[in-house]
Amino acid sequence: MGLVVQKYGGSSVADAEGIKRVAKRIVEAKKNGHQVVVVVSAMGDTTDELIDLAEQVSPMPAGREFDMLLTAGERISMALLAMAIKNLGHEAQSFTGSQAGVITDSVHNKARIIDVTPGRIRDSLDRGNIAIVAGFQGVSQDKKDITTLGRGGSDTTAVALAAALDAEVCEIYTDVDGVFTADPRVVKKAKKIDWIAFEDMLELAASGSKVLLHRCVEYARRYNIPIHVRSSFSGLQGTWVSSEPIEQGDKKVEQAIISGVAHDTSEAKITVVGVPDKPGEAAAIFRTIADAEINIDMVVQNVSAASTGLTDISFTLPKTEGRKAIDALEKNKGGIGFESLRYDDQIGKISLVGAGMKTNPGVTASFFEALSGASVNIELISTSEIRISVVTRADDVPEAVRAVHTAFGLDSDTDEAVVYGGTGR
Amino acid sequence: MGLVVQKYGGSSVADAEGIKRVAKRIVEAKKNGHQVVVVVSAMGDTTDELIDLAEQVSPMPAGREFDMLLTAGERISMALLAMAIKNLGHEAQSFTGSQAGVITDSVHNKARIIDVTPGRIRDSLDRGNIAIVAGFQGVSQDKKDITTLGRGGSDTTAVALAAALDAEVCEIYTDVDGVFTADPRVVKKAKKIDWIAFEDMLELAASGSKVLLHRCVEYARRYNIPIHVRSSFSGLQGTWVSSEPIEQGDKKVEQAIISGVAHDTSEAKITVVGVPDKPGEAAAIFRTIADAEINIDMVVQNVSAASTGLTDISFTLPKTEGRKAIDALEKNKGGIGFESLRYDDQIGKISLVGAGMKTNPGVTASFFEALSGASVNIELISTSEIRISVVTRADDVPEAVRAVHTAFGLDSDTDEAVVYGGTGR
Repeated sequence: MGLVVQKYGGSSVADAEGIKRVAKRIVEAKKNGHQVVVVVSAMGDTTDELIDLAEQVSPMPAGREFDMLLTAGERISMALLAMAIKNLGHEAQSFTGSQAGVITDSVHNKARIIDVTPGRIRDSLDRGNIAIVAGFQGVSQDKKDITTLGRGGSDTTAVALAAALDAEVCEIYTDVDGVFTADPRVVKKAKKIDWIAFEDMLELAASGSKVLLHRCVEYARRYNIPIHVRSSFSGLQGTWVSSEPIEQGDKKVEQAIISGVAHDTSEAKITVVGVPDKPGEAAAIFRTIADAEINIDMVVQNVSAASTGLTDISFTLPKTEGRKAIDALEKNKGGIGFESLRYDDQIGKISLVGAGMKTNPGVTASFFEALSGASVNIELISTSEIRISVVTRADDVPEAVRAVHTAFGLDSDTDEAVVYGGTGR
Repeated sequence: MGLVVQKYGGSSVADAEGIKRVAKRIVEAKKNGHQVVVVVSAMGDTTDELIDLAEQVSPMPAGREFDMLLTAGERISMALLAMAIKNLGHEAQSFTGSQAGVITDSVHNKARIIDVTPGRIRDSLDRGNIAIVAGFQGVSQDKKDITTLGRGGSDTTAVALAAALDAEVCEIYTDVDGVFTADPRVVKKAKKIDWIAFEDMLELAASGSKVLLHRCVEYARRYNIPIHVRSSFSGLQGTWVSSEPIEQGDKKVEQAIISGVAHDTSEAKITVVGVPDKPGEAAAIFRTIADAEINIDMVVQNVSAASTGLTDISFTLPKTEGRKAIDALEKNKGGIGFESLRYDDQIGKISLVGAGMKTNPGVTASFFEALSGASVNIELISTSEIRISVVTRADDVPEAVRAVHTAFGLDSDTDEAVVYGGTGR
């Protein structure tokens, strides 16, 4: 039996009871003969409480100190978890990100892991211990300052440690039973996916699926670490994310034509109206946006009206960046040259993801037919090799997701999806 | 202007308002031209809340993990304090005990500082920053594990850093205006002491005065670092603790004959009854106690009764160790040879401290007369060169302290003592 990395989110360790429950599960893995490394997030609302405190003392908390503050959260949960495991008669040691050798760049609040040197973890395992590691945090390579990895960072910590320690699997424990064919809160008949390829999971994550974050899946694919997403509450088999289909019993799980339907209502749309249809215009717009450090998602340019020689360019971006983008564009209006801006934050995006669509030409047509059947108007369209995304009114999203889910035969016979708790980070 | 180390206890940074108030005071010192290093404790009740959580997951939390847990408290307060200072337009950086170079032994929960290598602090100061350091914590020399220094540890951190950085003064900010001639909660007319010698402060601390802990004063004396104990609430001049009297205005503060009256009701008394009065008996008793790792305070042996050849030996020890001491002695009853044990936890200790008593032979007599005048019965007596201590009934302590305080002319003309908040660590 090899080495297993397990990651538990904040909702799984929200209180003393949760910590004791998780401790039992960890000890079980150890009893089954595995070497066990556990990555843990901060307890329940701890992070929000710390952010609240920071806002009370300073309206714009500085990056370095903000990271120092937030990392207290995992320090608490990891120490308590190690105590709970010892209380069950097994040896455990907790390690901060820095002690675990999680080396990052110096971009506070959203640092990137650049190396993992898990010498102390390896030592601790070799001495028979269970190693508990603080998720979400690391230490900067140049300045030796404490950093945090940003949203979903604990998952990335887990995958990075799994890669560095050459683990058999990285188990991500959460409050749902796995990755579903659609968000179970929207589609009651969503099905748990037994296996999904890295590529499809990356597209789902990029399209609004919240179970795993893009960066974490990217890391797992690069180092070919199988991820097993499962519930810390139910103990059921969850979803395997890997390069090759898994065996279940004596049958191999088949690659599905369509993996699932994702949706995202966190974006807004900006339309730049009356742009001269000449070379360099789009570049001027998106250089302005890039200089303001705003990430955009979809971009669509309509055919220009022959009579005016002007065209419209639309793009989507996180709602939280809307104000900043409008300000940047208005400030540069003369340089770019456009008539006006339209801002719309009542939009939603629906995406259909599946490696099978490459070789099934009818998929796009069926997707639009399903939306049309549900009377959903399409405002923007964007596609990749294994994904089709459309922008619609935000109000239409739930109905549109259900219609597409049914049209592609993804509905389960039963309402199987269960959400157990809140969400961790 | 030189370097100042300031230490703020948990009651001074109990909430966001407290942190902002302390930040202003720190910035003032910086504006006055000082280089400023700040040592900070955990906010208000944080430590108690963490201990409570630990007890919920494990009845006997392990030392290493317990330290990892507790150190989260200072991490929160120091990061918030740095943010609050930056918000006032000054540069600040926070450092964990480990980052600040506080090297300790490996005795978890009550580690001792064995070295301080403040290279990062010095760098930060040289770049014009205010350095904020987590009190109460360090890193073990051999295992690189996080350690805590035990009760009052933040004061020791402050003095140790002051010594390593060759500071002009170590300012200990607390919730009282300084060291008083007696506990102001017991003696309304207690006076603030302007200056006290290290030796007298050591005796007061050993005798139950809670303002500064023994270990911290010991450290300051060894490295000759003046301590200024003062309130973070009032801004008044507090008490200077140093080797030489300070100048105040154009007059030098005189060495007082009597520094103050301390009391302690945290001890219990054990009497070993019917001990054969022969060589080696006392040694057998106190070897048994020492092997149980119990620290004792006063020891008294009565003259043996000629008729029986048996004597009684009494000693005092922390109440919390009472059960353990009784068990150890009972277990070794045959080896030691005694008739019975008497345990009494309704005792109190009153101590009079002052370097002047060496050369004033009347002090002891006046002390006993004061107690007699207050009808207080004396059960045990113990003296050092600059201290007399007696054990009485616990109920008699407040009256006894007031009587002695008055008899030695220590009473103030006014009720000047103010206690501002709770107590930190």
